[in-house]
Amino acid sequence: MIVLSTDFGLEGPYIGQVKAAIYQQTPDCCIIDLFSDLPCFHPEAAASLIAAYCQNFPIGTVFLTVVDPGVGMGEHTPMVVKAGGCWFVGPGNGLFDRVIKRDRQSQCWRISWRPETLSHSFHARDLFAPIAAELAQGSFPEWKLDLMAAPDPASLENNYFRVAYIDHFGNLVSGIEAKCVPLDSVLMLCGKKISYARTFGECAPGALFWYENSNGLVEIAANRASAASLLNAAIGDHIHI
Amino acid sequence: MIVLSTDFGLEGPYIGQVKAAIYQQTPDCCIIDLFSDLPCFHPEAAASLIAAYCQNFPIGTVFLTVVDPGVGMGEHTPMVVKAGGCWFVGPGNGLFDRVIKRDRQSQCWRISWRPETLSHSFHARDLFAPIAAELAQGSFPEWKLDLMAAPDPASLENNYFRVAYIDHFGNLVSGIEAKCVPLDSVLMLCGKKISYARTFGECAPGALFWYENSNGLVEIAANRASAASLLNAAIGDHIHI
Amino acid sequence: MIVLSTDFGLEGPYIGQVKAAIYQQTPDCCIIDLFSDLPCFHPEAAASLIAAYCQNFPIGTVFLTVVDPGVGMGEHTPMVVKAGGCWFVGPGNGLFDRVIKRDRQSQCWRISWRPETLSHSFHARDLFAPIAAELAQGSFPEWKLDLMAAPDPASLENNYFRVAYIDHFGNLVSGIEAKCVPLDSVLMLCGKKISYARTFGECAPGALFWYENSNGLVEIAANRASAASLLNAAIGDHIHI
Repeated sequence: MIVLSTDFGLEGPYIGQVKAAIYQQTPDCCIIDLFSDLPCFHPEAAASLIAAYCQNFPIGTVFLTVVDPGVGMGEHTPMVVKAGGCWFVGPGNGLFDRVIKRDRQSQCWRISWRPETLSHSFHARDLFAPIAAELAQGSFPEWKLDLMAAPDPASLENNYFRVAYIDHFGNLVSGIEAKCVPLDSVLMLCGKKISYARTFGECAPGALFWYENSNGLVEIAANRASAASLLNAAIGDHIHI
Repeated sequence: MIVLSTDFGLEGPYIGQVKAAIYQQTPDCCIIDLFSDLPCFHPEAAASLIAAYCQNFPIGTVFLTVVDPGVGMGEHTPMVVKAGGCWFVGPGNGLFDRVIKRDRQSQCWRISWRPETLSHSFHARDLFAPIAAELAQGSFPEWKLDLMAAPDPASLENNYFRVAYIDHFGNLVSGIEAKCVPLDSVLMLCGKKISYARTFGECAPGALFWYENSNGLVEIAANRASAASLLNAAIGDHIHI
Repeated sequence: MIVLSTDFGLEGPYIGQVKAAIYQQTPDCCIIDLFSDLPCFHPEAAASLIAAYCQNFPIGTVFLTVVDPGVGMGEHTPMVVKAGGCWFVGPGNGLFDRVIKRDRQSQCWRISWRPETLSHSFHARDLFAPIAAELAQGSFPEWKLDLMAAPDPASLENNYFRVAYIDHFGNLVSGIEAKCVPLDSVLMLCGKKISYARTFGECAPGALFWYENSNGLVEIAANRASAASLLNAAIGDHIHI
C-alpha cells in the first residue's frame, strides 16, 4: 500500500501523474490519498500530521510525502526512512523527524539514484514514485540508496505546539499528542481560553473546546460551528498550554 | 463494490482513512467516491440524493453513507439496511428512509458490535468501514447485528421539495422525482418562476429552466450560467410546484 | 488504463458515476483522475493540456476527455481517436486536434452506437465510459464506430498562445510547447514582461519568471507567490512572445 500526503492541492494533474508513475511499475498497487492539502511551506506541521496519521496503517506501508518550499533548489536531499515498520519517501527537510523520533531503530538513506529523465520541479513523479513503487513491491533497491546517519532523536521535537491543519469543518488540528496534555489544561489560542470536552455533543452550539481527535492529536473545535472562523486562526498559530 | 457518500469534504484525511480501513480487510475491494460533499446538517437532503443516485449500481453494492449533525452525541443508532438488493451502512438518522420507502421488503439491523478501538468522532472509519467491508466480501456478519423493525413506508416521504445539492456548475439538484412532475409545471424557487426545458441547448444563454437530470431528479439550471447565483439559492430552499 | 480529464469539478457525483460505469464493465480497470477541473467552455485550452500531459502514459492508454460547452445540444459528434498509440474518447469539438496534429497516422471514428438508456446531459457516463471500457479491455468495438476522415493536420494549430490552466499554487500553464520558445524570449502577459529562469530557486521570492514545466509546456510562475494573483490573469489570456 502506498499512501500519498502532499501539498499539491486536490486540483490539477499532479496527484494523477504521481499515481500513473506508480501504476506503470506496479499496476496492482493499492494507492490511498491521505492528504492532498498539507499546508504549503510548513514541513514542521506536516511532520506532526504524518507521525499521527500513519499509525493506523499496516506494517510495510509506504508513505510518499511531499511538502517542499524549495522546489527546484536542490537543497533538500531526497530520502527514504524506515521507522515503525513502515517506509517514508520524500524530501529531507524535517518531514520525517517525528516518525524518526518515535522509533529508536529508524534508518535513513539518501536517494543517490537519478532516473534518465528528471524534471527540476516534479521529483514526486520522477524520483519518489519509482522508489515508493519498488518498496511497495517488497523489494529494497539498495543500489539506488546510500545509508546515512539518522538524526539524533534527542535533537528532534515530539510536539508541534501550533495549528498544523484546518479541516473542511473549520476544526483546528494541532501537532500536539493529546496524551501529553492533562484533561484539565486550558489552552490559549489567538487570545482565547479553551477548555476540554470529551466530544462535540457535550458543548453548546457555537462553543469552543479542545478534545483528543481520532488520531490522538489535540484538536480545537466548536459544536456545529467553525473554530477557525470563531478564532480567526491560521496554520502555524501558537497554542499555549 | 463500496460506494462512499459523506459530508466529510474533499480535503483532509477522512476519506483516505475510511478507504484504508476498508482495504485492510478487503484489499481488492473496488471503492467509489460518489459524494464527498453531501450537505452538512441536512440528512433529509442526503436521503433523497442517495435514493436517486444509487439506482445505477449493481445488485450487492454497499453504500457507506454519513451525514451526521450529532457527531459524538451517540443519539443515532448505527444501522445496516438492505433495500433494492443493495446494502446501506451509516447512522440511523433518516438517511435511508427513501430507499426503505421504495422497497417494501426492506430490512433493517442495528449494529450492536463495537470494535476494540472506537473513537467518539469517527464511526465511519472505526465502525461502518469494517461492516461495509464484510458485506462487500459477500459475508453477512449476523452476530454483529440485531434485526429491528423497518419504519412503516407510509410514514416516510417520497420527495424532498427543496434544493438538495448545488453542483460545480451552480445547477440546483432537488429531492423531487421528475416522474411526479408534469412537464407543463411551473416551479417557484426564491420568488422566481421556472419552466421546463428538455435540455440546456433549448434555452437562451443565462435563462433558467428545470429539467429531468440524468438520475431522474428535477434539476434547476441555466444555460452557460450558474442557477445558484442567479437565484441566490441555498441547500434547503423550498421548491413549490 | 483509463485516464479521466474533464471539467466536471472535483465536487459532486459525476466523476464517481463515470467510474462506476467503467468498473461495471471492467472491474479490474486502473482508472486515473488526471484533470477534474479542466477549464469549462475552453476546449482549445483543454486540447493543448491533453496533448502535453498524455505523453508520459503507456501505449494503449485510453483518455476519456470531456469539456463541452454545448451539453445536450447534440452539436458535437461523439468521437474515438487513435493517435500516438493511445485512444481518445470524447466530444468532437476540437479537444483532440493537437494529438491528431502530432501523429500523421491518426485515425478518427464517429461513435454511431447508442446505449439503451442515453441521458441528454451525461454522455460521459452513458456513451463514452462504455466505449472507453471496451478499448481498455483491448477490444475494438468496430460495429459501434464509423471510420471518418481525420482533419488535415495542416489545418490544426500546434500551440495555444494563451493561459490554458491555473494550478493550486497560482502557476499559469500555457498551451505553448517550450521547445518552440528560445530561452532568451521575453513573454508579455497582462501587460507585464516575463523572462526565463530554469527553476523557482533561481528567482527572488515574489519574482515572476517563465520556465519549461515538467510536461514540456511554457509555465509562468513566481517564487513562493501566486503568478495568477500578481498578474490578475485568467484562463484564455493572450501570451505574446
